[in-house]
Formats: sequence, C-alpha cells, structure tokens
Amino acid sequence: MKKRQADTIQRLFEPESFAVIGASQDPAKIGHKIFRNILSGGYRGRLYPVSPAGGEILGHKAHKAIEDIDDAIDQATIVIPAKFVIDAVKSCAKKGVKHVQIITSGFSEVGNNAEEHEIVDIASAAGMRVLGPNIFGLYSASSSLNSTFSATSIMPGNVAILTQSGALGIAMIGKTAVDNIGLSTIVSIGNKCDIDEADLLEYLIPQEQTKVILIYVEGVKNGERLIEALKRTTAVKPVVVIKSGRSKRGAMAAASHTGSLAGSDDIFDAIMRQCGVLRAESLEEAFNWCKFLSTSPAPKGDRSVIVTNGGGIGVMATDASEKFGIELFDDQPTLKEVFGPATTSFGSTKNPVDITGGANSADYDLALSAPAHSEFMDATMALYCETATFDSENLAPMIRKTYETHRAAGKPITYAIVGGESVEKAISALKKDNIPVFSDVYQAVSCLGMSY
Amino acid sequence: MKKRQADTIQRLFEPESFAVIGASQDPAKIGHKIFRNILSGGYRGRLYPVSPAGGEILGHKAHKAIEDIDDAIDQATIVIPAKFVIDAVKSCAKKGVKHVQIITSGFSEVGNNAEEHEIVDIASAAGMRVLGPNIFGLYSASSSLNSTFSATSIMPGNVAILTQSGALGIAMIGKTAVDNIGLSTIVSIGNKCDIDEADLLEYLIPQEQTKVILIYVEGVKNGERLIEALKRTTAVKPVVVIKSGRSKRGAMAAASHTGSLAGSDDIFDAIMRQCGVLRAESLEEAFNWCKFLSTSPAPKGDRSVIVTNGGGIGVMATDASEKFGIELFDDQPTLKEVFGPATTSFGSTKNPVDITGGANSADYDLALSAPAHSEFMDATMALYCETATFDSENLAPMIRKTYETHRAAGKPITYAIVGGESVEKAISALKKDNIPVFSDVYQAVSCLGMSY
Repeated sequence: MKKRQADTIQRLFEPESFAVIGASQDPAKIGHKIFRNILSGGYRGRLYPVSPAGGEILGHKAHKAIEDIDDAIDQATIVIPAKFVIDAVKSCAKKGVKHVQIITSGFSEVGNNAEEHEIVDIASAAGMRVLGPNIFGLYSASSSLNSTFSATSIMPGNVAILTQSGALGIAMIGKTAVDNIGLSTIVSIGNKCDIDEADLLEYLIPQEQTKVILIYVEGVKNGERLIEALKRTTAVKPVVVIKSGRSKRGAMAAASHTGSLAGSDDIFDAIMRQCGVLRAESLEEAFNWCKFLSTSPAPKGDRSVIVTNGGGIGVMATDASEKFGIELFDDQPTLKEVFGPATTSFGSTKNPVDITGGANSADYDLALSAPAHSEFMDATMALYCETATFDSENLAPMIRKTYETHRAAGKPITYAIVGGESVEKAISALKKDNIPVFSDVYQAVSCLGMSY
Repeated sequence: MKKRQADTIQRLFEPESFAVIGASQDPAKIGHKIFRNILSGGYRGRLYPVSPAGGEILGHKAHKAIEDIDDAIDQATIVIPAKFVIDAVKSCAKKGVKHVQIITSGFSEVGNNAEEHEIVDIASAAGMRVLGPNIFGLYSASSSLNSTFSATSIMPGNVAILTQSGALGIAMIGKTAVDNIGLSTIVSIGNKCDIDEADLLEYLIPQEQTKVILIYVEGVKNGERLIEALKRTTAVKPVVVIKSGRSKRGAMAAASHTGSLAGSDDIFDAIMRQCGVLRAESLEEAFNWCKFLSTSPAPKGDRSVIVTNGGGIGVMATDASEKFGIELFDDQPTLKEVFGPATTSFGSTKNPVDITGGANSADYDLALSAPAHSEFMDATMALYCETATFDSENLAPMIRKTYETHRAAGKPITYAIVGGESVEKAISALKKDNIPVFSDVYQAVSCLGMSY
C-alpha cells in the first residue's frame, strides 16, 4: 500500500476539490477562519462548506453533510468538536474522500489513543489518508490552498515547513512574513496518526518549487522510514531540522505536549548527521539558514575568503568558519595577487583579508569584486565594523552592489556588519530585499557553513 | 610599584586635567574628533589642546607643546604620527603626566616592538602609566570624559567595556546606542604595552556605577594576574568575556592582528569557568547578557518556572534551561496550587506551565503574577506564540504590566515571543524601555541562565 500512498500524496497538496466540515458563519470560530483563508488565498479547486446549520457562509451555500455534495471530494478538513470527529471521518470514508485533515484536538495528545486508532482503522479500510489530528491545517502554494487558520496571509516561495507543534507553526507563519521568507508549503503534522514527515518528503523531494525544507520535530514514530526519506531528500535539497526535547527534562515536556517519545539526543544527532541534515538549535538559526539556502547559490568549491575592515571581527569570523566547517583559502601568493590591489600597506592579504578601518566604498568594491571574479575563490564572507571614516550612507549601496557582483558570478556571499543606528537601518532595508546581512558574525558565517 | 599603580588607576578614569597632543582644526583628523568629543561630552576637568601649529581649536587656544601648559596635567592622549610618539612620551614624562593614552598605531602590532619597549621604559622611569598604543581612546562616565574618536555619542550607564580590538570597540559603541545600553566606561586596550585588563579591573571592582563588565580579548599577556583580578571581580559583579582566536586558524589571525598569543582555547575556557566568568561566543549574545544583567535583579534562588501558551516553545525553553544551567521548579502540588487558577483543563500546571493557545492577556496576567507573588518561585521565563485568538494589540501592554509586577517583587523575568509583524513591533518598543524581550527562546533563556 505504501507505493500507492506515495503516488497519491501529491493530491494532499493539490486537491481538485475541498470540503470544510465545520465551516461557520461566526468569524470567531476556527471553522470560519479556515474557510475564509481558503477563499482569500485564491484556492484554484472547487470548494464546499459543510455545516449542519446550512445557510450561506461567505457567499457559499453550506451543505448539511458531506454526503449531500454532488461532486467528488479530494480532500476534507474536519473542524468540529472531538466527540463528532469519528462520525465525520466515517462520512468522508463513505464519500470516497482521499485525504482528511483533522484540526480538532483531544486525541492521543491527551491520552485518548483509542479514538485515534479507530480513526486510522476507518480511514485505512477506505484507502483514505489522515493528516493530524491536533493541527492548524495545511498551506500549499502549488494549488494556492491556504487551509490553515493563521491570521497572517502566507507568501508563496521556496521554503517548505513541516511542524509537529501547531502553536509554533502558526507563530512561524508570522515570522516568515516578517523575515520575507516565501513558502512552498507549511504542513501541521500534529499527532501524525497516519501521515508523517516521511510521507510528506515523498512529495517534496521532486517538487521543484521547494528549495529548502524546515522540519520542527519533537519525537519520531517510524524512525527507519524517516531516515531513509531524509537521506533521499538531502541528496537533492537541504533539510534543516529543529528537534526539541533534546534535554531529559525537555523530552518529558515533549512527551506531555505531543505524546512523543524523544529518545536520546546524542543518537538523534548522530543519525541526523548521517542523513546530511542541518540541525538548528534555535528558531532564529533555522530561519536564517532557510532564507540563505533558498536565495543564495551553493558554493562550487571550498575556497572561501573573509574580507574585513576590522581585525577583531576577522578573528571572530575565522573562529566561526572553523566551527561551521568552512575552509579558508590559504594560498598566500594567490591571495596577494587577488587582493593586493585592494589592500593598503597597513592591511593584510592573508585570509582574513584586512582592508583596515580606513577602507571606503571604493575599497570594498575593489576587495569584494576580486573573489567574485577570481577563478580561485568560491565564497565570500564580508565584514564591516562601523568606523569614523566610512560614510554610513554608502553602506547599503556598497552591499547591494557587491552582492549583485557575486550574484552575477554565481557565487555566495554573506555579510556581517556591526555598528550603530545607520548600520541597523541598512540591515533592515537589505533584509527586505533578501540580501544576507547580519549584525552578528556567527550568524553570517553559519549560513555559509550550511551551504557546504 | 604595583600597589601604587592600583591606587592611582582611578586617575585614568577621573583626570582633573587633560591634554590632547595632536589636536587639530581639521574635522577629518582623529586629533580633531577626539578633542571635539571631549568638549561635546561635557568633560568636567580642565582641557588643553596641543598642536605645533598653535592657533585656536574649537575656541580653545592650542599650546605648541605640552611643556608650555601652565598647569599640572593628569592625563594626555597622543594622536600624532608614530615617528613623533616617543618624543611626545618624553615630554609627558618630563611634565609629570600621570597617564598617557597612545592612539597612534604602528608599534608591536606591526612588529615594531623596540619602540614600544622604549616607550614603556621612559614612562616607567617617570612613574607614568601608558594605555595603548593602537587604541581609539577611553570614555569614562564618572568624569564625563569621552576621549574616543567615535562618531556616536555615548550614553552613560552601568556597563563597562574593555576591548583589545579598536575597530570592534568603535562598532560596539554604535551597537550600545542602538540597543539602549548605557556605559560606565569603555576602554580601548590595544597593544596593552603597560596598562592591561587586570589594572582596569582594579578600578571597576569597587566602582559603584559599573554593574556588569564586558571584555573583548584576543590574547592574554600576564595570565596569573588577570585570573586573580577576574576572581575578585566576579565575586562582586558579573564579567562577560568574548575571547576570539578560539580556533587554531583564528589564533593565527589574532596573532597578526594584535600580536597576541592566544593559547589553547580549552585551557582558556576552563580557566574562565574557574574564575566565574561568563563566556559569550558572539557579540549579540554578549550584549544581550550585559543588558539583562545590568537591568534585572539577580534571582534569590534557583526555583525557576516556564510559562507558555505553546507546547513547542515550552519544550525548547526546557532544553535551553538545561543548556544554560537553570533549575526548573518541580514540586507538582505547589505548581498546581500556584498555577491552577490560571490554567484551563486543556493546559498543564507542570513546569513548563502551559496556559494554551487560547490564553489572553488576563490569563497571562494571572499566570505571570503567580510566580511574582509566590514565595516558592525565584525567576520566570514567559513565552508567547502568536495565536489567532490573542489580540496582538494587547501584547506589549501585557508584557509591560507583568514585567512591572516582577520588578516590584524584585524577581527576574525574561520573555520570548514568536510571531509576525505585530510581535516584531512589540519587541522593538519594549527593548527601547529595557524590558528583556527576545524573538528567540534560546536568547531569552540564556540571559536568565547567566544570572545564576
């Protein structure tokens, strides 16, 4: 049956028809929010609200039951009180629905395993797959389907998010909007009574729009299958994982949150490394990596160079390079040849290349176009310390220009710029245009490190 | 002689008279910037520009040589080309100057050890102490002396910064302004030919205005003395250290930057732990810690509690608590008694206390005032995931109110809030008022961890 499931998982993301069981006229209800999001998201399939009260919901005639709909239904989402969910699942199975999302909570996460098993049995017998329960829904850019109850609209893009935590997932949607990160999909996995990360990866592996995948996981149910799916995924695109429940106490908290058994963190870590997965500790780190990986070209080789106007941050970037596994190019004659023209007598052409605190925009242009054009360099870390001599109005234009130079050369570059208000303003403006600029050296360097 | 030096180091921060050797009328010159900063900073002592050209500088008559000044000079800063520095040092020694700062570069950091030794010998024979060379100057709130060439003005406050890197120090001044961190002092140590971190700590240990000390160091010259000074310092106030040159390659870069020998990072790390020093990896981490430690009360005991509206971030905070050495209070009956009234049937009074995604301002008020008022709780980590049910306009007022509740109770609280634009806006506004709010769980928890 697994083979067939892999073939049909695409329908979860691209259903031709969709029913909302529990759609509501009351704007405060989740059944209203989901229906409204599907409408305002511009879903390209046929949409049906289902409500025992009947009537109209946002201009759409509500059917009293899914059986009353005179159309084949690819997917239904169930947003009704827990005690009615099993009957709704039975109706969906009878109707021939291919996928159901169960938004409703109150199942295995509170110890109610029996009903969750019954749901799976009913669905399985009908060849129907179940997402959830205990989820906030699913967004899929490929069919413009926003069947989540997020209050924020979702921007289409190249990052896929799979999340076991619902609350965090909703918050992450908000954070992607702030960070200008577009999503190909976000899927709330919840209790994963049936569909799990491995199933979803089957769809994401070949899916062209998805360039990076971010997974938030607290516990794994079918480890071997996940490992196999992750290995196949990382062979073609990067996967960032945040696994919480790392600590003993955290694992206990995870168990009471999603009923997950976290297992040993060391073992998980070792397995993730074997799978080629990038393991982020914090949300901030994960988001930085995803944005960088989805917007920057991968380096073609490991000959990286640090260009700085300050020795101190140059040393910090060197430390960070070692931490994140970045090789620093070390051929002194070549470095001298490439950077000599851009470096004054006070500076250094050693790597980190120090163009000194006296450097201005023109010096940076010269020093940062050198690795873009050199056949000997693959990636650049550009550092700037605010100085009294560099006119801060030139900072953002300098970064835009040198970023474009690297882009045109198909090479990645990352920036760390440290200073006061003008520096902070430059960071805000540049981030909106997806230029990888950070106020912290470790953040900037870690992003490049994840590209290798 | 060391004893006498300790007695007089106060004069470095509180000189009654000050000469700028190399003061200039040209606004582009560093000798002008320093003189202007001292004037605009409102230095409370007597100030003298020295310039061979004579004339007036910003309304002050310039003396052609320090010997011409008809006043005793406590401190002089030397901002002239390297080849003239030794003569200026001789003049200062003859004049009976107690401290000289040497801004000028071109000494041991470029291999010119001989002249640096000569400077120390001349000074030492005259009982004069030397700061630098290769520095950006010194700011001291206690005498309103800003003898740096920073382009940003410096806000007085409770954090002291000692930095070996000049460029990074200037950038840090900008960053403190953005982060609303006030300084009691910032000292550029540079090549530390004479005055080093241990000397400066002698002044900072008893100095009341200084609540936290941040040290950026690349290499240590007199290790035993520094260890002894650090131990005495951390007994009375927290010290945060950023030591770069951690990696082998970074150590090499540090050697060519400030001529420092970095030594083994593992050994340094172990020594810092023995000294009770908080070691930050990145600038961002160091600044977060310094701000939190200088504005929040220290916890009176180790009974900490996590309050969250989302299980996922609760688990992350639990992991982070273990990483940063925070004990989670674990007495279930007490937790139930304290948090029971604030927690619905879907929530959990276990620690992390989960007031669920349905929680509103009133629920947070109730849940977060509980640990403030409970004799069993010492510190709180408050987490919020953006939800569809919490009106985001209430977020900042809720945080302000609960922060004040904790403040009034003399207990620390730290916030991590995750979400979209309204969350980001709340963070910006609250940070300006020095309320410890972060968009990342690990950042929030690490700050509290450093309080123990």
